[in-house]
Amino acid sequence: MAVYTDISANDREAIRKAYCLASESRFTPISEGVENSNYLVDSDGQHFVLTIYEKRVNALDVPFFLALMEHSARHGIPCPLPIQTQGGEQLFYIGPKPAALFSFLPGKSPKRIQNEHCEQVGRMLAKLHVVTSNFAGERANALSVPNLASLIKQIGEDANRFKPGFAAWLNDTYAAIVKQWPKRLPQGVIHADLFPDNVLFNRAHLSGLLDFYFACNDDYAYDLAICLNAWCFEQHHEFNITKAKHLLQGYNEVRQLTREEIQALPVLAQGAAMRFLLTRLQDFLKPAKGAIVKPKDPKEYITKLNFHANVKSASEYGL
Amino acid sequence: MAVYTDISANDREAIRKAYCLASESRFTPISEGVENSNYLVDSDGQHFVLTIYEKRVNALDVPFFLALMEHSARHGIPCPLPIQTQGGEQLFYIGPKPAALFSFLPGKSPKRIQNEHCEQVGRMLAKLHVVTSNFAGERANALSVPNLASLIKQIGEDANRFKPGFAAWLNDTYAAIVKQWPKRLPQGVIHADLFPDNVLFNRAHLSGLLDFYFACNDDYAYDLAICLNAWCFEQHHEFNITKAKHLLQGYNEVRQLTREEIQALPVLAQGAAMRFLLTRLQDFLKPAKGAIVKPKDPKEYITKLNFHANVKSASEYGL
Repeated sequence: MAVYTDISANDREAIRKAYCLASESRFTPISEGVENSNYLVDSDGQHFVLTIYEKRVNALDVPFFLALMEHSARHGIPCPLPIQTQGGEQLFYIGPKPAALFSFLPGKSPKRIQNEHCEQVGRMLAKLHVVTSNFAGERANALSVPNLASLIKQIGEDANRFKPGFAAWLNDTYAAIVKQWPKRLPQGVIHADLFPDNVLFNRAHLSGLLDFYFACNDDYAYDLAICLNAWCFEQHHEFNITKAKHLLQGYNEVRQLTREEIQALPVLAQGAAMRFLLTRLQDFLKPAKGAIVKPKDPKEYITKLNFHANVKSASEYGL
Repeated sequence: MAVYTDISANDREAIRKAYCLASESRFTPISEGVENSNYLVDSDGQHFVLTIYEKRVNALDVPFFLALMEHSARHGIPCPLPIQTQGGEQLFYIGPKPAALFSFLPGKSPKRIQNEHCEQVGRMLAKLHVVTSNFAGERANALSVPNLASLIKQIGEDANRFKPGFAAWLNDTYAAIVKQWPKRLPQGVIHADLFPDNVLFNRAHLSGLLDFYFACNDDYAYDLAICLNAWCFEQHHEFNITKAKHLLQGYNEVRQLTREEIQALPVLAQGAAMRFLLTRLQDFLKPAKGAIVKPKDPKEYITKLNFHANVKSASEYGL
C-alpha cells in the first residue's frame, strides 16, 4: 500500500464541488506507485485518478509536470489529462499538499515483457520526444548523470553498510562513466522513468504512459538507455538482445537516432544503471518514513551496470 | 454510409506525418454521422477519429467547436479531445476541407433507451452547462427558435408537398410558440443536438458526448427541452413520463433549474420539436446531393410538438 494521505469526508466534498463530480462519487485508494498517493475516483461510472503529491515531488515542479502531461495528451500521447477545476485551476490543495485530478486510462502494466511491448515502448518514447519538441516548459534533471556526484558524496561511507568496499567501487565506477560521458547529443524533454510499472497495455496495445514526475530536459538517447535497463533484462538480470533490438528499432522508426547517439548508448546505459543503483541504494540505507513499500534491491543495477560496462558497441544491443 | 470525402494515399501520408502516427496506421470509414466524414484511425493499436468537415458545417465555426471540445474534455466531460499537429495546429486541411483528429472514446449509443440512460444524460448535460460557464468562446444559434422564421419562409409553399395545408399549419403553430417564448432564462453554451446517436455508453455508464457541431449560446433549459424530445418518447412517439422524470431529476441534481426554467419547459419543448421538424422537413424536401443517408421522417416531430402543446405544466414531465 502506497497511500500516505487519507482524504476526509470534507476533502471529498470539496473535490466533488471543485470538479463537478457526482454526489455519489467513490474514492478508492490505488496501491501502485510509491511517490504519491493515488485514488481511483468513480463519478457516475466515469473514472478519474486523484493524485496527492507527497514530499518526494517538489511542489514547485508540479505545474511543469501537469503542463507536460497536458501538452502530451493534446498531441496524441496516451497519458493522463489533467482535469481543471470549475475555477480553471489544474491544482487543488488538500491541506498543504498539492493534488490534481486526471483522466483515467484503461490497461495494465505488463507482467511478462514481450518483444512486442519493447517495440511499442520504443515507438511511443520516440513519439514523446518528437511531440514535446515544441513544448515550452523546461526542468533541469537533478538526477542527471553529471549531477550524481553529490548523491554519491551524500551516501558516502554508508555505502559500505550495503557491502564492504562499496563506497570506493561507486566512486571509481562513477568516475569512469563521467569521463566518457557524451556532451553534445540531441536534447529535449525526456520521461526519465519509463519502467514497465509506468506503461499500460490494453490487450497487446500500449494504452498509457504514466508517472511523469521525473520528466526533465536531458539527452533523448539517455531516456532510451533508461528503457534498455528497464525493459531488456530477464528475471535474473540476464540481458535479452532480442528485446533490446525491438526497443531500439521501434524508437528508430519514429525518431531516427544519430550516429553519435548510437555510439554513446553503452555509456548512457551505464549512467542510467548508476542513477537507479544510487537512488535504490539511498532508499535501502534510509527508507522513507511512513512508507510501507519495500525498498527495491540495488543489486539488480550493479549487475546491469557491469553488463553495459563490458559492451563494446551498440551492435551488442542488436542495433 | 455517410463518408463523403475519400482520402488518398498522399493524404494519409501527410496525416501520419502531421500527427506523428505509426507508419502502418489504418484508416477505416465510420458509417455513423450524417454531417461529416469520419474515419477510425488505428495507429499501433491506439485509436483516433479523423473528422473531415463537409459543407453543412461552416468552416469558420470549426475553431469554436474544437476549442469547446478541448475546454470540455479538460474539465472532465467525456468528449473527444482534439489532437494537435506537430506544428501545434488543431486544424488540418485535406484539399480545401478542414479536418481534425480526435481521441477515440469507447462505448456505444444505446439501442433501447432505459431510465438510467436518461438520468445520466441529464446529469452530464448539466455538467456540460456548468463547466462551460467559464468558456470564453461564443457562437450565435442560427437555428434558435426566434430565428426559425427565416427557415419557415425559405420552405414556404413547398411544405404543402409534404402534406396539403402544412405551410399554413407551420406558420400558425410557429407564431403561437414565438408568442409564449421566454426571454430571460439563464443562458450559456449548449450542445443543442444531444440525441442518443451522440451519446456513448460503456456497459451502463455514459462514456462519451459526441458531435458538438450544433453547439452555440442559448437557454440552458432549451438544451434540456431538446433532450426531452430526443430521449423521452417511445417507438411510436408516445411520451414516457418516467424517462422524463429521470432526465429532469438527473439534470436538477447537478444544476438546479430555476422556477422560470421549469415553467417554460412546455413551450421550450414545443420550440425544440419545431426546430427538428423544420430541418427534417427541409432534408425531406431537398435531400443533400451525394448523401446516401435516408432523410429522417418529419412526422415524428409533429406528434411530439402536438404532445408538448397540450402540456399545461412541467408536472406533466414528472417534475
